[in-house]
Amino acid sequence: MPLVRIDLNQGRTAAQLREIADAVQEVMLDVFAAPPGDRYQIVTEHPAGQVIAEGSGLGIERSDALVMIQVFHQGRSVEQKTRAYAGLSRILAERAGLAPGDLIVSMVENTKEDWSFAGGRAQFLTGEL
Amino acid sequence: MPLVRIDLNQGRTAAQLREIADAVQEVMLDVFAAPPGDRYQIVTEHPAGQVIAEGSGLGIERSDALVMIQVFHQGRSVEQKTRAYAGLSRILAERAGLAPGDLIVSMVENTKEDWSFAGGRAQFLTGEL
Amino acid sequence: MPLVRIDLNQGRTAAQLREIADAVQEVMLDVFAAPPGDRYQIVTEHPAGQVIAEGSGLGIERSDALVMIQVFHQGRSVEQKTRAYAGLSRILAERAGLAPGDLIVSMVENTKEDWSFAGGRAQFLTGEL
Repeated sequence: MPLVRIDLNQGRTAAQLREIADAVQEVMLDVFAAPPGDRYQIVTEHPAGQVIAEGSGLGIERSDALVMIQVFHQGRSVEQKTRAYAGLSRILAERAGLAPGDLIVSMVENTKEDWSFAGGRAQFLTGEL
Repeated sequence: MPLVRIDLNQGRTAAQLREIADAVQEVMLDVFAAPPGDRYQIVTEHPAGQVIAEGSGLGIERSDALVMIQVFHQGRSVEQKTRAYAGLSRILAERAGLAPGDLIVSMVENTKEDWSFAGGRAQFLTGEL
Repeated sequence: MPLVRIDLNQGRTAAQLREIADAVQEVMLDVFAAPPGDRYQIVTEHPAGQVIAEGSGLGIERSDALVMIQVFHQGRSVEQKTRAYAGLSRILAERAGLAPGDLIVSMVENTKEDWSFAGGRAQFLTGEL
């Protein structure tokens, strides 16, 4: 936890994809206070035209470099969420040259009982986490 | 927002996929009162056998044309949700010839703090939206 | 309902993928008390490096056989969830030889109004379910 889904267009190298995933994970560790090794990510590349974003009437410019990130987690505060958005925007600009308009992040919260990290145990309930 | 995931089997043309995505977006604008340009969609095509649906004991007939739609959003009422289901069924029948049994829709709600549409800002919290 | 997303690395045969999906469905029927035919699954195969999991500091060993399962559902208890994790781990070990460290499960809850299984109706609200 968190479980992070990263959806984007085809066209990046494996190394570039990894760089994006690594950068996202850094924010999870730093801002979401995920413990080291708490990394769960699913990257999905899509053919052109299958990740669709417009500007929400905010004058946002989107390009084919667009990255959509969906974070499933439990227990973070509003302040952590807003810092995560800012952190993701900054680090993805630095590491992957992502423009501000090419990052969309949304989150879904669940609870401690909603996670099993291995072996069929709910580690937040067993006390392992 | 909403973020809409559309999962379906391979076999449609790019134009047919776009038509489905466009139709779904129309319902988001009409029924979910999304503002113009508020469009976030991820279409994923799957090889045969990887989108699996049975009939829930309701006598529903499924075919390979099946479309699974998952809508992540905040703030819609039960009435808006039920109208969205009806609207999606009607418009996808009209535009894409989809049979009633080939549409499955589910929703997940989050809150205003769960969205960043660009630039690392939470636009629902900053007052931009 | 439930809607189950199964994400894993490429490299299994179609029959092996089906075996995993069937095993997951058995747990949904047995533990989540889904009625017969209540099956909604999306399997997604990913190129190497795109499903990323570390060990959460728990000493968990991951391999390329890793299976990430995300279950969207409504109305199950904590006890049902914990039994589902255990059941998934056991059955996937038996049927697919999955190691304990290669199964990650997370859940997201919604409500009765969040489901339409066909025809644009919300079957939990209409009384059909």
